[in-house]
Amino acid sequence: MDHNEYAALLLGKIRTQKPLIHNITNYVVMNYTANALLACGASPVMAHAYNEVNEMTSIAHALVINIGTLDNEWIHSMLIAAGVACSNKIPVILDPVGAGATTLRTNTAIKIINSGNVSVIRGNASEIMALAVKDVRTKGVDALHSAGDAVDVAKTIATQYKTIVAITGPTDIITDGIVVVKVHNGHKLMSYVTGTGCTATALIGAFCAVDNDYLKATASALAYFGVAGELAARKAIAPGSFMIRLIDELYSVTPDELKQYAKIEIG
Amino acid sequence: MDHNEYAALLLGKIRTQKPLIHNITNYVVMNYTANALLACGASPVMAHAYNEVNEMTSIAHALVINIGTLDNEWIHSMLIAAGVACSNKIPVILDPVGAGATTLRTNTAIKIINSGNVSVIRGNASEIMALAVKDVRTKGVDALHSAGDAVDVAKTIATQYKTIVAITGPTDIITDGIVVVKVHNGHKLMSYVTGTGCTATALIGAFCAVDNDYLKATASALAYFGVAGELAARKAIAPGSFMIRLIDELYSVTPDELKQYAKIEIG
Amino acid sequence: MDHNEYAALLLGKIRTQKPLIHNITNYVVMNYTANALLACGASPVMAHAYNEVNEMTSIAHALVINIGTLDNEWIHSMLIAAGVACSNKIPVILDPVGAGATTLRTNTAIKIINSGNVSVIRGNASEIMALAVKDVRTKGVDALHSAGDAVDVAKTIATQYKTIVAITGPTDIITDGIVVVKVHNGHKLMSYVTGTGCTATALIGAFCAVDNDYLKATASALAYFGVAGELAARKAIAPGSFMIRLIDELYSVTPDELKQYAKIEIG
Repeated sequence: MDHNEYAALLLGKIRTQKPLIHNITNYVVMNYTANALLACGASPVMAHAYNEVNEMTSIAHALVINIGTLDNEWIHSMLIAAGVACSNKIPVILDPVGAGATTLRTNTAIKIINSGNVSVIRGNASEIMALAVKDVRTKGVDALHSAGDAVDVAKTIATQYKTIVAITGPTDIITDGIVVVKVHNGHKLMSYVTGTGCTATALIGAFCAVDNDYLKATASALAYFGVAGELAARKAIAPGSFMIRLIDELYSVTPDELKQYAKIEIG
Repeated sequence: MDHNEYAALLLGKIRTQKPLIHNITNYVVMNYTANALLACGASPVMAHAYNEVNEMTSIAHALVINIGTLDNEWIHSMLIAAGVACSNKIPVILDPVGAGATTLRTNTAIKIINSGNVSVIRGNASEIMALAVKDVRTKGVDALHSAGDAVDVAKTIATQYKTIVAITGPTDIITDGIVVVKVHNGHKLMSYVTGTGCTATALIGAFCAVDNDYLKATASALAYFGVAGELAARKAIAPGSFMIRLIDELYSVTPDELKQYAKIEIG
Repeated sequence: MDHNEYAALLLGKIRTQKPLIHNITNYVVMNYTANALLACGASPVMAHAYNEVNEMTSIAHALVINIGTLDNEWIHSMLIAAGVACSNKIPVILDPVGAGATTLRTNTAIKIINSGNVSVIRGNASEIMALAVKDVRTKGVDALHSAGDAVDVAKTIATQYKTIVAITGPTDIITDGIVVVKVHNGHKLMSYVTGTGCTATALIGAFCAVDNDYLKATASALAYFGVAGELAARKAIAPGSFMIRLIDELYSVTPDELKQYAKIEIG
């Protein structure tokens, strides 16, 4: 089966199985990512209280941790939830939003990764780079570094932490440290909508919830998201209308269309 | 006056009186429910700090408590606000989001109800069922149980807590434990938009703010919301566009149209 | 250079320089204001943890503080961030949401202003009035007082706190206590979208980030936002569609169009 067929298969599985995705995510994107997960066919739940996350994670099929808006109590909850996810053998997807921009974010991302329970890390090039190299600063949550050296960075981090790493940008790079997969879907308007990176991470959660091959599942999720972006851009030329059409397309795209439009490359 | 005329009358009252609705609600839906209340004609305010909720509730015409994203400080604020609302004789609407999914949510919902100040409880069948029966688990915030036995559950809970109970679903059931009202409006796309349940609860707050008959006011609010959903679905076929059209229709629906389209049944 | 040319120049600067705007803002509007800043051409970041705000503010080009949803820890963070902004000589824009409605909000707004680091305060007439006069109550976050006496109020507060004050409404009034600028752009549908005031404040942050004349920058930002509102209202007649079109227009409006449509009056 080629990669496009694989992606199509997983999208079909999500719509049949409706996996429950537990998100501990930032305030800015909670609503948008919940709507994206619903449109995809998954069942989102947002919960962050330290005295309930263990129960919520224990009924979920994937855990998405996003450090976009942090405080100490939430960090505590993230670590509890990641531990439960590990015990239950469900995937944990980490979005290290703003790693490199502040010490708190960099250290929190590394602490969660070092807990040993992270399956996939998705970020832009600077965020991922900040996980390895000290004294790197990102310009908020935007990318400072070119994607040119992104493959090397991704492989280094994936090897260092024994996890899947996805660096998203004009071309998405996904690797387990050895195999490198590239996804060429997407549209530039996506960078004008807040939380598209976070949404990609949440969708990776949905795809990993229905498949144990997290490398392929991550590439499939990013192709799906990118295809939806391309289709949305056919109908909208400015970011307000685009972000709404993007939700529409996440809902409307069929597995067959995903198979047709996905641009997944191995190597 | 029949029920449709009654609903139309209350919608007109909201647009004239612009009642202030104090919401202590979850992060995911704050923006959407605020926009829904504005579109309806009400005036929303969101405030949760324990050292200001007493003042905010004291100038409000209804209090909406939603436990969708909880922590201990917010629970404290919810109980303070409910007490002030009771003293001021304004309605308190409770949305027990995710009751049954975690102990914290179930216990918090029951604690707030047992404070004796709740006028209306709105949830899906599993959330409402969780308020009565131990060891019930919901699949996140989605309904696990069929609506078939929903009437019995609603009547039991309404009687147990001496309050109005609304179970929403394809058919909405509203009861004070004796009289049962059913509302047959709505559209299946509503279940693909996050926070439509929470929005229904907020709108119940607006309708109860202008009328002391909370049973009829709740049925009127749910008919209004369902009619807006039906009209929105005429113009949108996917959830992104639909959620925006839904706000449009909440704003555009006239009392006369509500009277014409509402499907409210006593029995 | 006339004021319309000036506004056009600043919009062009934002799109070229992409200033980083650090927002400590309320939960309700975080997503919408982030999208508005992106559409404008700025780079938004939301961060509120007391143990990271100093680093985040130190890499930002403007700080926006909005007290719409408060708690004690956030107040602490706001004061730290305002201090860093002052040391770094970047503008601090304050939105005293709901000042007058609760003691916590009024006192917090005044405490932040008295820290001596606020460059611009933007609110509606009652919120601004509450900063001066005790025992004023606002109806939630909506305006109770007519804009008739708004000029006097704005001048009084601007003089009292040695800052720029902007009172927004059908006509926006901006003053440093001596010079008064009025902006006549905008559309009534803006009052049916939650967070339009907060969005105006965030956009003032973007304009002040690229220009040291905060009086002119504030007037330019409000003209830009009002023009976008007018253009959006040509394509949308209800608040859901309008709020999406408003983001579209913030992105699409060119400096030339802003120069053409702005209605900025000195006097």
